[in-house]
Amino acid sequence: MRWGLIGGGRGSQIGEAHRIAARLDGLFIFSAGALDVDAAAGRAFGRELGLADDRSYGDWREMLKAESSRPRAERLDLVTVATPNATHYEITKAFLEAGFNVLCEKPLTMNVEEADDLCATAASTGKICAVNFGYSGYPMAIEARAMIAAGELGDVRVVMAEFAHGAHADANDAENPRVRWRYDPAQAGISSVVADIGVHVLQMAQFMTGQKVTSLTAQFEHSIPSRELEDDALLSCRFDKGAIGRVWLSAVATGQPHGFVVRVFGSKGGLRWSQEHPDQLHFTTVGGSTQIIQRGDAKHPASVAASRLTVGHSEGMLVAFANIYRGIHARIGGGAGAGGERGYPDVSEGAEMVRAVHAAVRSAKDRGAWIDTRTLAAV
Amino acid sequence: MRWGLIGGGRGSQIGEAHRIAARLDGLFIFSAGALDVDAAAGRAFGRELGLADDRSYGDWREMLKAESSRPRAERLDLVTVATPNATHYEITKAFLEAGFNVLCEKPLTMNVEEADDLCATAASTGKICAVNFGYSGYPMAIEARAMIAAGELGDVRVVMAEFAHGAHADANDAENPRVRWRYDPAQAGISSVVADIGVHVLQMAQFMTGQKVTSLTAQFEHSIPSRELEDDALLSCRFDKGAIGRVWLSAVATGQPHGFVVRVFGSKGGLRWSQEHPDQLHFTTVGGSTQIIQRGDAKHPASVAASRLTVGHSEGMLVAFANIYRGIHARIGGGAGAGGERGYPDVSEGAEMVRAVHAAVRSAKDRGAWIDTRTLAAV
Amino acid sequence: MRWGLIGGGRGSQIGEAHRIAARLDGLFIFSAGALDVDAAAGRAFGRELGLADDRSYGDWREMLKAESSRPRAERLDLVTVATPNATHYEITKAFLEAGFNVLCEKPLTMNVEEADDLCATAASTGKICAVNFGYSGYPMAIEARAMIAAGELGDVRVVMAEFAHGAHADANDAENPRVRWRYDPAQAGISSVVADIGVHVLQMAQFMTGQKVTSLTAQFEHSIPSRELEDDALLSCRFDKGAIGRVWLSAVATGQPHGFVVRVFGSKGGLRWSQEHPDQLHFTTVGGSTQIIQRGDAKHPASVAASRLTVGHSEGMLVAFANIYRGIHARIGGGAGAGGERGYPDVSEGAEMVRAVHAAVRSAKDRGAWIDTRTLAAV
Amino acid sequence: MRWGLIGGGRGSQIGEAHRIAARLDGLFIFSAGALDVDAAAGRAFGRELGLADDRSYGDWREMLKAESSRPRAERLDLVTVATPNATHYEITKAFLEAGFNVLCEKPLTMNVEEADDLCATAASTGKICAVNFGYSGYPMAIEARAMIAAGELGDVRVVMAEFAHGAHADANDAENPRVRWRYDPAQAGISSVVADIGVHVLQMAQFMTGQKVTSLTAQFEHSIPSRELEDDALLSCRFDKGAIGRVWLSAVATGQPHGFVVRVFGSKGGLRWSQEHPDQLHFTTVGGSTQIIQRGDAKHPASVAASRLTVGHSEGMLVAFANIYRGIHARIGGGAGAGGERGYPDVSEGAEMVRAVHAAVRSAKDRGAWIDTRTLAAV
Repeated sequence: MRWGLIGGGRGSQIGEAHRIAARLDGLFIFSAGALDVDAAAGRAFGRELGLADDRSYGDWREMLKAESSRPRAERLDLVTVATPNATHYEITKAFLEAGFNVLCEKPLTMNVEEADDLCATAASTGKICAVNFGYSGYPMAIEARAMIAAGELGDVRVVMAEFAHGAHADANDAENPRVRWRYDPAQAGISSVVADIGVHVLQMAQFMTGQKVTSLTAQFEHSIPSRELEDDALLSCRFDKGAIGRVWLSAVATGQPHGFVVRVFGSKGGLRWSQEHPDQLHFTTVGGSTQIIQRGDAKHPASVAASRLTVGHSEGMLVAFANIYRGIHARIGGGAGAGGERGYPDVSEGAEMVRAVHAAVRSAKDRGAWIDTRTLAAV
Repeated sequence: MRWGLIGGGRGSQIGEAHRIAARLDGLFIFSAGALDVDAAAGRAFGRELGLADDRSYGDWREMLKAESSRPRAERLDLVTVATPNATHYEITKAFLEAGFNVLCEKPLTMNVEEADDLCATAASTGKICAVNFGYSGYPMAIEARAMIAAGELGDVRVVMAEFAHGAHADANDAENPRVRWRYDPAQAGISSVVADIGVHVLQMAQFMTGQKVTSLTAQFEHSIPSRELEDDALLSCRFDKGAIGRVWLSAVATGQPHGFVVRVFGSKGGLRWSQEHPDQLHFTTVGGSTQIIQRGDAKHPASVAASRLTVGHSEGMLVAFANIYRGIHARIGGGAGAGGERGYPDVSEGAEMVRAVHAAVRSAKDRGAWIDTRTLAAV
Repeated sequence: MRWGLIGGGRGSQIGEAHRIAARLDGLFIFSAGALDVDAAAGRAFGRELGLADDRSYGDWREMLKAESSRPRAERLDLVTVATPNATHYEITKAFLEAGFNVLCEKPLTMNVEEADDLCATAASTGKICAVNFGYSGYPMAIEARAMIAAGELGDVRVVMAEFAHGAHADANDAENPRVRWRYDPAQAGISSVVADIGVHVLQMAQFMTGQKVTSLTAQFEHSIPSRELEDDALLSCRFDKGAIGRVWLSAVATGQPHGFVVRVFGSKGGLRWSQEHPDQLHFTTVGGSTQIIQRGDAKHPASVAASRLTVGHSEGMLVAFANIYRGIHARIGGGAGAGGERGYPDVSEGAEMVRAVHAAVRSAKDRGAWIDTRTLAAV
Repeated sequence: MRWGLIGGGRGSQIGEAHRIAARLDGLFIFSAGALDVDAAAGRAFGRELGLADDRSYGDWREMLKAESSRPRAERLDLVTVATPNATHYEITKAFLEAGFNVLCEKPLTMNVEEADDLCATAASTGKICAVNFGYSGYPMAIEARAMIAAGELGDVRVVMAEFAHGAHADANDAENPRVRWRYDPAQAGISSVVADIGVHVLQMAQFMTGQKVTSLTAQFEHSIPSRELEDDALLSCRFDKGAIGRVWLSAVATGQPHGFVVRVFGSKGGLRWSQEHPDQLHFTTVGGSTQIIQRGDAKHPASVAASRLTVGHSEGMLVAFANIYRGIHARIGGGAGAGGERGYPDVSEGAEMVRAVHAAVRSAKDRGAWIDTRTLAAV
């Protein structure tokens, strides 16, 4: 299938990750792109990466116009939007309306209205609008979901999930442009760590448990006082089938390279998964010993299908990412994702996470009031 | 020195731990006891353990009376109170007033008034009233405190501490008398996991950081619905020198044998300590690699002095406990504790923790309101 | 560049890994193949994978003939040989002589004469003959090599390396064809675990230390007695710049999913790397605390260049493998590999490992005599 | 019971460990001692530790004479010998012959003849002659033994055991008297690391598997060339019921604080135990996931009885040591050790280890010849 990319110019980590993930399984051919806000730089970089001259564009509007008029045999099957957050809505909407399938980076949009509108646009156009919660492509995250769905943990009681890294712990680095924009409302929007990493945590909690967040309470902190937006947050949330969530987020947790860890505790057992060592799940039944389940020993079809290598070989993030692309590919092709499920996070999850961010911000401002994530009203 | 024990009868884990800890360094001779609510059983068990017939008592009042009249040469230097929580106040007060030094199990008392009264009693009698927050006797907890005091972490920003085990996760076991009393207000008081394990976490956070909790907010959950008291709780707190705390407590965290882990993040570095592997500290400076500091490689005098074995040999909980006894011994003898500090947790910390429990209960009832732990009023 | 593959038919793990690795960086286009001993199956599978009809061949001779006559513009830049071990020599030699660059799976050949002949052939043709010791493509293996080369460990004294998995521990599975051939001299040759995994260990020890094995002694065991070839082996070896090696190999080590761990100890420090968690190096200077060096924090240019993702994201085996392809690509293109070195293991290392296997077999037969790996005579 | 100590003067780690271990369970009262080669210093230190003036001796002969004439009611029940290795034989023999039970530090003697003679002396006097292989007192080592005895691992195939620390890795420290004597044959005897730590490994392998070493081959290295005795060694051995052993020993393994790890692989499963984290066993059945068995969840009576604390609390080396004392105490009192077994390592194991050391030295000198550990002849 033919694939296009918007954003992800020279030096962009996420752009390179998308290009590797899209081609890892040989399912997508990189065919068009508008890679940079600097039109000339974007065109040059696209050609360097092998794009045809006439499909390496200076901006997304030019790309939209030209690609829309391609004959069916050359038409892009999927467009990935990896631009700054504030532009996601406009670009995604435009490509959906022009009949393209889209994979949008998270956060989906800057506000709830835009998110809802994209849900409606996806529905009305019948096009795929996926959102890149890429961690949910890890085979052992999929295994955790399958175990919970199969009742191996019993009723889920408590989810303790954290995403706490130390990348922004250096106060001397706070004025570094690479860091500063993240705490500047003008650029980052209403939230920093919740919008940036909290959405991964909540999406993963929903993904693994099969439950949806219905309300939450949040405490925000600015541990480096000059920051306008939070760099550490603590949330409690409730899920629709009875689970409760405890979520800790931080960007000042020195010593934790990545720090995304999910623990789920149910009436029959508990499990633990850590993104830094993603090939293992720790699983314990009530009264039993902890078992280390290796990726290659996973039993559920969805996770087996999501795996590329035999046991003992670490697979890593690029495969998780490639699983999102594979899921979209299967859906475009009319098939199912790995294990018979959708196979990728879609626009509804993107919108749920936008709501969660707004609920958390409201709660934090209102001294920890519980907020309904659907209505965004205090409960 | 001569040592007496109240409570800790046959089958009591904590009683055996006190006896081992008290004699581990050869500093205390077990000389008198009232070990059981069943007077005959208590007397028999005391003799079996080597007490003289006339110093193995049927109850603590009998012991108090008889030991108070002993000549100076035979007089007990320290009495440990390891009875049910509701009796701590009465017994501790009586022994202090009779001129004995006391080590009381936690929680110190059932309410704030009693705790304040014991503080006053200790002050007026000039006797030691220690409280057994035994984990703070671990050498690497002491090392963490010394590192932070020496500025190695810079200003402490965030403390993330959790004590989450799975011992009460089995709903089928909920009616087991060994478990049930913990969730019954008539027996356990106003709180379960906060009073039982939360106090260890907050005391340790205070101990390591050298800061005092000033206010907190709490979310309580009853993940097994039949329980009247909380079996899972999430707290945020503020400390007097600017740190913020995130605290997760649980008794339904299947797969975590003990689950007491403290992480402290400061402007210069972060550290991590886990009670299950207490001989190591993970320490990371901002921008640096994580270092695993082994107990035997600790540098600060207080932790070096608290250590018995060379590097590589695990020391364990009994040594931590013995350090509390050693600290009290040194203070009774007129010296200082290890490293020139007090060397044991005292009545003021016990009272602070009683306040924290009450503040958490109030916050949880008031939908997460922030409560001043000193006034117990909303802030 | 255009790439061809011989072997790696449907269901082959290694074939799929090669295809992913070759395309991961977008450097090679899969252009021709002879994928299966069953000619029809191989042709069909190749087409399914996107090969042109006339470049999906029934066997390697057919492929050699046709591809040799392609015009320069269509000519394959690299051919990978992933066929059964006994065929490596013939195929590799034929393609080298026809002017193709070759990446051959390990073990390079079944005997020393063939290995030497391939060295000579590579030299005389001027073509690349790489050998797929793929683990040496891991960024942190490259970092270890760079650290040792920079003197950070001082003089290397002892290398303790093991590759001990439990995949063949089940005696009931011993007749399983997937397992049995490995212990049958008619199919596997003179050695099982040394030839299969021992060569990875010794190659990695050479790679990290920059030293060459000069002599060794070996103990072979058949812990499942029906096996003709060893399933557990212990080796000591000497390196040319003074290091000594301790090597343990096993296929019956139940509980170790992969079990490839290398520890290097020098006069200034020691390090540890484990393939199961390949993104970390544990490094300790003499008298210092152990540091956990994360992949993303590696400092040496060669490992930085070998890395795709930021710190905290696991990269995995496919990236290691892709680094081998990238190194070959750079060399074909006239550039250098990552960090200015060759960038891939070449035929000389393949030949060294064939010698090491033969030396180990001879030693094991001769009750542990020390064997010179260059002359294969007792020393 | 009354207990005496020879050696273990001021500053001695092992002396302090013995004193703590002997009193930890309150079973032995420290009643007599000859603690130092400097008679006055020894007497003074003994009194400081609470010995009566007339039972704190200047040397062991004085102690032997005086204690031998004590009336039965004051007589020592056990004497621990913790003097330099070369004196073990003479002192132990003298006390056994005088009718005392003895716990001797390892290595039991400097040569085989002395070891055999102590076996004979213990038999003829009917006194206990225990040898302090203290690590075999760890509850999870006992659990491992019980699991293997119960057939949970099936037939033991391979034992991989290592004891490799970095305490003597610093060449600059080689002339430090605390280190130098260990590599000086005049003081340390015929072997360094094998005699010092290798005996712990082999005794533990025997203890866990219930099998006896019958022959071995050894490679010795002097990684710091100035050393006369080995600082790194690799052994293979055979056991009497079919297991084979792989043993790596080192004193230059920088980064490993202690480095004593035992892995046992059988036809049904494998296990792993590490002294640095002694409260856990990793156990895997063939085809199953690895389970982490916590000390407090051990099932076999012998290990349950050897445990003092509930699950999740680390116990440590002093409890392991105390278990040896408890086992001796039970035997003296006519009872059985924990779990119905002897409960402590005895003189026969001490003698077996002396033979193993001599066999290893002979093998290393004879280029790795296999040596029968019973006859010390090549096989």
